[in-house]
This record gives sequence, structure tokens and C-alpha cells, in this order.
Amino acid sequence: MPAPHPKHAAPDHPLLAPIAARWSPYAYDPSRDVPPEQLLSCLEAARWAASSYNEQPWTFLIARRSDQQAFETLLGCLLEANQQWAKQASVLMLTVVQHDFRRNGKPNRVAAHDIGLAAGNLVLQATALGIDAHQMAGIDLDKARETYGIPDGYAPLTAIALGYALSPDAIDDAELQSRETAPRSRKSLSELVFAGRWGTPAEL
Amino acid sequence: MPAPHPKHAAPDHPLLAPIAARWSPYAYDPSRDVPPEQLLSCLEAARWAASSYNEQPWTFLIARRSDQQAFETLLGCLLEANQQWAKQASVLMLTVVQHDFRRNGKPNRVAAHDIGLAAGNLVLQATALGIDAHQMAGIDLDKARETYGIPDGYAPLTAIALGYALSPDAIDDAELQSRETAPRSRKSLSELVFAGRWGTPAEL
Repeated sequence: MPAPHPKHAAPDHPLLAPIAARWSPYAYDPSRDVPPEQLLSCLEAARWAASSYNEQPWTFLIARRSDQQAFETLLGCLLEANQQWAKQASVLMLTVVQHDFRRNGKPNRVAAHDIGLAAGNLVLQATALGIDAHQMAGIDLDKARETYGIPDGYAPLTAIALGYALSPDAIDDAELQSRETAPRSRKSLSELVFAGRWGTPAEL
Repeated sequence: MPAPHPKHAAPDHPLLAPIAARWSPYAYDPSRDVPPEQLLSCLEAARWAASSYNEQPWTFLIARRSDQQAFETLLGCLLEANQQWAKQASVLMLTVVQHDFRRNGKPNRVAAHDIGLAAGNLVLQATALGIDAHQMAGIDLDKARETYGIPDGYAPLTAIALGYALSPDAIDDAELQSRETAPRSRKSLSELVFAGRWGTPAEL
């Protein structure tokens, strides 16, 4: 596990270390590569996620920065605002969702949710290995489909950058440094856990 | 962490312990309750998940078995096939998704995905505490909305059962025992990680 960091969660109740340590950096060290065996562990973690009817409706398209052409191709499928920082990451991925069940062709209402389970596993495995991760919704869906030949029935959903966050002290850009040290915020549990009736906080 | 179990993952690459240990039991010990402080850690884990624009589009409706009436109410929102086993769990929850961004009312394309991130955190935190979890898509969406007064703009998505799995040896029902000891299966990484072009396995 990495050393304590100002962006780690300040939880009200004890958390599993990688859950508390996970955050989404924008500033990555372009000189450091994720070792292939650790990348495999991250993907393996995604592989073992739960899914409705064990459908595993997830596919990952992946490019490592060490393969410059492949990396540029995947980078080009992100929205411009994400390209600006994600170009420093070590690994980029697109997640792709299969919307219908393979076994009967019927819509899988929770397919995107289940991609979230797999991506969450991937990101926590990364965090446990000292790798930082930043997930993005901001991708060019049409370009991703065209670039990779994603067939009908599948759709690009998110992107994930993996790498090693720069220490805030090592960030030159003042705006970026400010963003990387801003306090994290979350709704309180009383705003998101209800019992009996919508809007009634659970007494736990 | 619980002792090794026949349903733990047999990963091809090293995994964070709770990722390897997580599975979805159907047989729960009805005499054991999840301690409230551990339930709070599970919900806290969900709270710190990543989400697009930090929208946190998740709400949890929760009932503990120790409150029989509340538990029966939530149990009644599951499909019959899930009620049969989930009635033995210690805690039941419904996850509810907010489909539009609060800040601008526009559709949040990844809201369901982000519920998956939160639910994944919750389930891994549970597993780390020795609590078993089983997520379900099989819920009565209309009944859940009506029962809890879930407003427009929000929609029930999944259910989660928490409790303590029975040892397979302690399961009386032969069919259920067989289900609880059946080997787990997953696609291989070469089927789900592509590079360069759809269908081309990544060389990692």
C-alpha cells in the first residue's frame, strides 16, 4: 500500500485499505510503467467480479504507453479534456458493455452496473498494488466504435487510466496542483441510506 | 478473512484477498446477524466509490432481519426465486439509481455503472469483514417503487443480501448443497481483453 496521502478518504467508519486509498489523480509520472504482471492481476480482478447470470458482459480494450502507436490510438478515443492528462498515464483502457444476454438475446438490465463491478475490482486491485487509477465517462463513443470495430450489440462505456500519480509537490502547473490537493467530499450516510420510506435516514 | 473455501476464486494471477474470496452464496445462517458497526463500514465503503462528476448517483434502502416487519417489506420487493433464499440473510438492501445529473438535469450515461462501483466497494468491504454478500437483479421494480415511494428520476436497480454463508456440509437440501459447491467459471482473459482491434487478444 502507498504511504498516506492527502487525497485518501477520511472515513467515518473503518475501511479496507485500498478502498480508503483509492482516488482519481490527474497528474501521472510519464516515466513509470505498470509492470505487465501487475496489469494482469488488475484484469484478473475484473474477471472475477460478480455478474447477473454470470454473464460477464465486460470487454476491455487496452493499450500501454510503451507501445506508442497503440497508446495514441486509444488516447484519441477520449474526449479532449481527458486526453490532456491521460497522455501521461502508463496504461489506458476502454470498457465495452454487451447489452443483451448471450444465452437468450434478451436485454440485460444490469449490464452497465456489472461493468462497474468489474471496473471497481480492477481499480481496487491496482490501488492495492500501489497503482493509481482514474476512470472516465468522457470518451468519444462513435470514434471508439469505429477505431476498434466494436460490433453491434456492444457499446463502449468508460475509459480507465492506470499509472503512478505525481506527488502534489512535483506538479508544476498551479491549477493542476490545486485540483490534486483539493479536499474530497461525499454525501453523508444519512443522505444515501434510507429505511422504511424514501427520504427517511436509516438508524444503524 | 474467512478460511479458504471451495468457492473462492482460483485466479491465474495474484488477487487482493477479498476479491479472491468473494462469491455469492445462496445458503445463509439465519441465526447470525451482521454487527451494526460492520454494516456501517460496508455502507461507508460504498460512499467513497468514484462517480462521474462526483455525482454519487446511489441510494440504498436497507432492512435488517432483526426488524422483522421492515425485513419482510424489503423481502417482498424481491422476485419469488430470490425470496426463497434471501429470507435467511441478515441484511437486505435495494440500490436505487438517479439517472440525471443533479447539477444540470442532463442524463448521466454511467449512473448504473457507478452504482456498480459503489456496490462493489460495499461487497468487498463485507467480504474483508467475513460477511458474505449476494447481489441480485431479480427484483420487482414496480413494487419496490410503490413500497418505498421512490420518486420520479430515481429507479430501483439491484438488491444485495448480506449474511453468513452456511458451510456446504451444513446445508440439508441436496440441490442447494450442489449449487453451493459447483465449480466457478469465468471467461479467460484472452476472451475479454483485446488490443488494437475488437477480437484480437491483448499480448500482456
